[in-house]
Amino acid sequence: MKPEGTLLLTRHEVAALLDIEECITAVERVFKLQGEGKTEPPGVLGIHARDGGFHLKAGLLDLSKTYFVAKANANFPQNMNRFGLPLIQGIIVLCDGANGYPLALMDSTEITILRTGAATAVAAKYLSRHDSKVATICGCGNQGRISLKAIMKVRPIERVYAFDQVEAQAERFAHELSDELGIEVTVTHDLAKTVSRSDICVTCTPSKKYFLNHEYVAPGTFVAAVGADNEEKQELDPMLMQRSKVVVDLLEQCASIGDLHHAIEQGLVTRDDVHGELGAVVAGIKTGRTSPEEIIIFDSTGMALQDVVAAAAVYERAVNKGSGTLLDFAE
Amino acid sequence: MKPEGTLLLTRHEVAALLDIEECITAVERVFKLQGEGKTEPPGVLGIHARDGGFHLKAGLLDLSKTYFVAKANANFPQNMNRFGLPLIQGIIVLCDGANGYPLALMDSTEITILRTGAATAVAAKYLSRHDSKVATICGCGNQGRISLKAIMKVRPIERVYAFDQVEAQAERFAHELSDELGIEVTVTHDLAKTVSRSDICVTCTPSKKYFLNHEYVAPGTFVAAVGADNEEKQELDPMLMQRSKVVVDLLEQCASIGDLHHAIEQGLVTRDDVHGELGAVVAGIKTGRTSPEEIIIFDSTGMALQDVVAAAAVYERAVNKGSGTLLDFAE
Repeated sequence: MKPEGTLLLTRHEVAALLDIEECITAVERVFKLQGEGKTEPPGVLGIHARDGGFHLKAGLLDLSKTYFVAKANANFPQNMNRFGLPLIQGIIVLCDGANGYPLALMDSTEITILRTGAATAVAAKYLSRHDSKVATICGCGNQGRISLKAIMKVRPIERVYAFDQVEAQAERFAHELSDELGIEVTVTHDLAKTVSRSDICVTCTPSKKYFLNHEYVAPGTFVAAVGADNEEKQELDPMLMQRSKVVVDLLEQCASIGDLHHAIEQGLVTRDDVHGELGAVVAGIKTGRTSPEEIIIFDSTGMALQDVVAAAAVYERAVNKGSGTLLDFAE
Repeated sequence: MKPEGTLLLTRHEVAALLDIEECITAVERVFKLQGEGKTEPPGVLGIHARDGGFHLKAGLLDLSKTYFVAKANANFPQNMNRFGLPLIQGIIVLCDGANGYPLALMDSTEITILRTGAATAVAAKYLSRHDSKVATICGCGNQGRISLKAIMKVRPIERVYAFDQVEAQAERFAHELSDELGIEVTVTHDLAKTVSRSDICVTCTPSKKYFLNHEYVAPGTFVAAVGADNEEKQELDPMLMQRSKVVVDLLEQCASIGDLHHAIEQGLVTRDDVHGELGAVVAGIKTGRTSPEEIIIFDSTGMALQDVVAAAAVYERAVNKGSGTLLDFAE
């Protein structure tokens, strides 16, 4: 049967269809499949522009049917000041993997944030201590919000410290999330103190220079390094990489654009020092946390397969609910 | 100023905005810029699916403004028989290269066909004899039609032979284009005879085995090898590559997915035997045709930069004419 058209979904339509709990389950399943070697290798490519850059991620996955996703994301750091536009903008092209038909075009923003938060939660589930109660969130934007909500689905978080270069941003985060989540969220200016008291620390900033010094991090902490997704970005002290157990989403990608790449560049860590990929941990091929004392880092650069599973879930929900607008591009 | 939305353009809207002559001029300019080293290296990646595959091409170009294009094309050979869907389907994402805003989403079909035909014409302009009057077109689909029309903009073609595995397809081609172009177009079953009498031969078939034997091709001929754009496709006898002057669109791409790759694989040709890239010829860095006797092959695999320039032209025309539908994906 020939499809009637391509479904167009705006950012808010996508947001209304996404569910963090469902997304965590789906992303965990994808990591497991990937760890078991049951997925096609995804592709990624980057193009530099004068004031920013574009990256493309593509992947194919057998779910209720075979789906292909290509995501084109733009990253322009000065956008808000210069144009009143978001830092990250993008479009996801979702195709039928059996015949290539473009099933949907959707704004990528919410999916990128949510699938990244979901990966952080999956990593926390396997790599943080079960009794993790205190978290520090560095970077109080949308990614920080989702990261916290996602982690709370897998760990009994009670106390959160919010850190941001922009104080007002941290204050808003603390105020809003205290109310929404019914836990204690306070602004911190003293990362050394709060991180050392935290069981979990998530970094999701646009920083180009590390701010999480290795001395801050106490034994037993789980650190999710989410922000660095191009070679210029950096959040973690490379020394922290050296003294920790490092788990990555994709080894080669992290070695070229993740926080890992800085540690490798400085000769502090080699690819062989990396414990393994999260997929292998979820699949049970590699161990996760084996003691309450070890510091474990998850270096997250984002897999196309996360986009596929999240976009497919959004699409199927949209079809069921009759959301979005249909356009026949072949017309 | 914040854009009002993303412009959506269907296949027929795109077709109505495209002009082959303008496209040839634009594509020639892109090859010149590329030959002069004034363009960013474009990116390409491929993902295999069970019954076909997807490829992504991305490029950035400074035109009236800076444009970024990502093209996601699906190629499923059995589509027509199995689903009544086209062999190739795809979407072009056109973004503002200054801030990443998604300016337009458009069907890729017409742009791919036209920018490919335009490259064939640019190659013919520099590599075929000025007095080329007779052409053989192998593969009588849409690409064959545009190839002929494009070549006629640069060479005084009077007589055309149409060749296709599907006889009815060749007959329709001959019938329709005789009328439309006012020249003699006839079906041929004897490629050996007609190619040997032709000044120009274009191959644009989905063939996986070469059919253009080297004995068919007379001295002085210009051959445009357009069909092979993945490692499984092949149209030209590798021996023909060996005895000809070979010009490519992108050396590495042709060496991995073009007709060139078969000749290299068989050890008949090395990268060093390739005369040069078309961009270098257009820029005057490499010679084009230097004698009326030489056989010159243009191996065409498609550059993302051709997509950028064609999509940008379509977008600017659409804005001027008020074509398409506007949707704010950030809404």
